[in-house]
Formats: sequence, C-alpha cells, structure tokens
Amino acid sequence: MKLACTVQYRGTDYHGFQIQPDAPSIQEELEKALQTITRSSVKVYPAGRTDAGVHAYAMVVHFELPVDFAPSDMQQFFYSLNCVLPKDITFIHFKKMPKDFHARYSCVARNYVYQILASPYKMAEYEDTTYWYRKTLNIEALKEAVAHLIGEHDFAAFTKETYAKNKETTIRRIDHIQVIEESPLVLLFFQGSGFLHNMIRIITGCLVDVACGLLKPDDLKRILESKDRKQAGRTMPAKGLFFLYAQYQDYQTPRKLVPRYRIIQ
Amino acid sequence: MKLACTVQYRGTDYHGFQIQPDAPSIQEELEKALQTITRSSVKVYPAGRTDAGVHAYAMVVHFELPVDFAPSDMQQFFYSLNCVLPKDITFIHFKKMPKDFHARYSCVARNYVYQILASPYKMAEYEDTTYWYRKTLNIEALKEAVAHLIGEHDFAAFTKETYAKNKETTIRRIDHIQVIEESPLVLLFFQGSGFLHNMIRIITGCLVDVACGLLKPDDLKRILESKDRKQAGRTMPAKGLFFLYAQYQDYQTPRKLVPRYRIIQ
Repeated sequence: MKLACTVQYRGTDYHGFQIQPDAPSIQEELEKALQTITRSSVKVYPAGRTDAGVHAYAMVVHFELPVDFAPSDMQQFFYSLNCVLPKDITFIHFKKMPKDFHARYSCVARNYVYQILASPYKMAEYEDTTYWYRKTLNIEALKEAVAHLIGEHDFAAFTKETYAKNKETTIRRIDHIQVIEESPLVLLFFQGSGFLHNMIRIITGCLVDVACGLLKPDDLKRILESKDRKQAGRTMPAKGLFFLYAQYQDYQTPRKLVPRYRIIQ
Repeated sequence: MKLACTVQYRGTDYHGFQIQPDAPSIQEELEKALQTITRSSVKVYPAGRTDAGVHAYAMVVHFELPVDFAPSDMQQFFYSLNCVLPKDITFIHFKKMPKDFHARYSCVARNYVYQILASPYKMAEYEDTTYWYRKTLNIEALKEAVAHLIGEHDFAAFTKETYAKNKETTIRRIDHIQVIEESPLVLLFFQGSGFLHNMIRIITGCLVDVACGLLKPDDLKRILESKDRKQAGRTMPAKGLFFLYAQYQDYQTPRKLVPRYRIIQ
C-alpha cells in the first residue's frame, strides 16, 4: 500500500534530507525506522530535498509498504515509528494514497519560510532556527524588492553555477513572497513550483542587503536579469530556513498542526 | 552600578537556575561570563529560581558591577557577555536601576506558562518545550476548574511536603490562570505573587486530569481545601514549563521581545 506522510524535523544535526555514505541524514533515519518496524526495506521519497541544517515543519514523503494495514492499526504503526526515530524527526500525519501518487512529481507547489531574528541581542529560544540580524531592517524596502521576483523567470543569478554546466533549466515560477513581521522575528514566506539549489537562501541574502540599505529594491530586477551568480548576495545560513509544506491535489497536512502554515492562508 | 537584566534560556541541559556544586546551572554560567568579561566576582540574583529542565522566556536578574559604564559601552558589554555564554543562555535586555532594586524582593508578580502539545503524534519542533498529551483535552472543563484556584489560598496540597516540616507558610495569591488554545498547543498561563516549589507543575497535573475526564472541575476545590499533597495529581514534567516574565514598578522587558508575553496582555 502507498502512503503519503508529513514529517517534521530539526535539521541541525543532519547533513540534509538525502542519504549519504558517511553522514547522518533524515532519509537514512526514516528508512532505518521503517526497516526496524516493518522488517523490510522501504525507500522514502520526499517532496523536496533539504540541505544540511535546513528544517521542516511539514515535509511530505511517500513510500510503499509491503503489506496492507487496517486503518485501526495504522495509528499504532506511526506511534511505533516515532518511538524508534530520533527525537528531532517525527511523523505527524499520514494518508493512504492511490498507486500513482508521488511526493515529488505530484506536488503542485512548495512553501518555505526563512526566519530572521531582528533584535539587538541574540536569543536562546531562536538560536537554532533563525538568522540573527542585529540592526534595523527596512521592511517597506523589502516588500518593494520582492515584487521583482514574482512570476516565471530564469533564476540563474540565484543558484549555484552547476546548473549552467549541466545544461539544466534554471527557469522557475515564484507564486508569491510574503514578508510578515512577528516581532522579534521577520518571516519571509516563499511559494513556488519548485526552487533551485540554494535559491531561497541567496534571494534572502539579497533581501537582507535591501532591508539594511546596501542594495536598492530595484537592484533585484538588475540582478535577476543579469543571470549572473556574482551579482547576487551571499547565501544565508541554513539554520533560518524551513521547508514549510507541500501542496497536492489530493493530500493536505492539516493546518492546525503547523502554526506557521496558518499565518499565510 | 546596579543593573536589571532580562535573561532568556533553554533549561534542557541545566540542573536549574541555582548554583550547585557538581551540576551545570544557569547562575553558574551567568556568573562565569560576568567574571570573564569584568574580571571580578559578580553575584546574580533572579526573580525566581527555576527547577532543572524549566526554561525562561524573560527571567529578570539583577547584579552590581564594580565600575560605571557609559550607556554607549553598555550594549557592547552585553554583546560580549552573550559571546562567552553558551548558546542556550542569552541576555536580551538591560536597564540601569537605583540601588534598592532587587530582582526577587521588588517583583510584584510572576508569570509562567505551561505548554501542552495536544496532538495524536509527538512533534520534533516541540520535543523539548512541551508535554505531549495524545488524547483530546476538554478545554471547557479545564477553564471551569481553574476558577477554583484564583485568589489567596493555602496551596499546601500543590507543593512538596517540606514546607509543613519547615513551618513555612504555603499561602499564595494567584491573580489569574488563562487557558489559550494555539493549535497544536494548549497554553496555561499563570500569574501570581509567587509560587511554591512544584506548584504550577502539580496544578497542571490536576488540570490535565480534569481535561481528560479523570477528575471533575469541582474536584479542584476539594483538593485545594484538603491541603493534602496526596489528594492532588502528579507533578508534570519540567520541560513544558517556562518562566514567562516578572513584573516590577520600574523595570519592564519590552513586550515585542517575547511573543508569548503578548498573547495575554
């Protein structure tokens, strides 16, 4: 039977979602837990791979189980999985899906949030989940800047240069970017068809430069059109980035489970 | 010069606020940092001592510095302190105070919040900061129950029996208890003159029993009047409890620094 599941994790202690030979990963932990409970080899497919240090409020994954469970046993199955998983990785929701569901290919939109702590002092509570920016951010300039990025564009300036080398397309669609002040945090919400490697972290690097006056809002247009990585700002630290949730025609993580998710809808 | 400061910390890895011979404590880390930066011995006094594993959004402390700083140097002084402190303890605000200010004795009210995760599955994001309750909580019964505890009472039933042995008073005043649903969390806010050892965690133990039907709301009145610890429920785990903030005539942590603080005022 095929299942779609929502997974919440803290990426701090992992080298990203994807399995790697010599470093801990989210995928490895999920597959190890499934191996322990089902006693068979189960491969896990995510909506998107997150980098080392990036977190997820509601990552969606799918996998095939070799046997059919009764619905009444399913809840116990997920309790068991959570018991053998490390405490920073948890299944928070699941649904039985038709055979053709695929966490990556069926996904119609992906949502991320980048969390900035805008405060004169760093704060223990936000240490692992925000980028600390100690000066004042010009939020109005930031809102003006993001408008240049909405829509379908070639985002080559905002990603690693490996795409050009591999002759892969760097065209993506951003549906919206929302800037929300939730003092002491400034939250940048990104929704789009998909994002290039490091794209959100590089865009956020430029946006922080705009918000502190190093760049003008219109510079984002120039950088986008240059298609040149060197024109854009730094790649922001992974720890401020969360995969928020993935959208599908036929699977939805309940909104009440993810407070951040409710802010924007 | 005397300073009042707000300290935010994660209590997970500490054996409480108070300094102890063989275990890490918040006080020890604060005093070690002050020793490193000022090169003199500085003793730190908190608004209240928190137990092992209890966190603080906005604990207030005071201390005396052997020299006077210019206001322009103070910010740098606190940056330096935060740099030498472990990442789970941070100074987030400070103010120069008159000689007679005392974090404990000048405090007019103390505020705590107990965080319950009410969700069928545990969640990585809340692992260290909530008590996970996987069944449904009857919030209306909970609101009815807390009414019995408001006001000045003898709370002997809700604390360790050592007070009776030491002939100390167990009379305290609770100003209000607010129950707020912020799905997937249920937040219990407590405001009062002061709280006995384990008082909030034992009251919360009774409230959870009411919210899941093991006790009736009116049982709280009976337990309170019995003054007998054995009538009350279990002591809830420390990890769900936060010292929220302390109130003074002449010192206030800015509300924008502490989101939880804004919910109730």
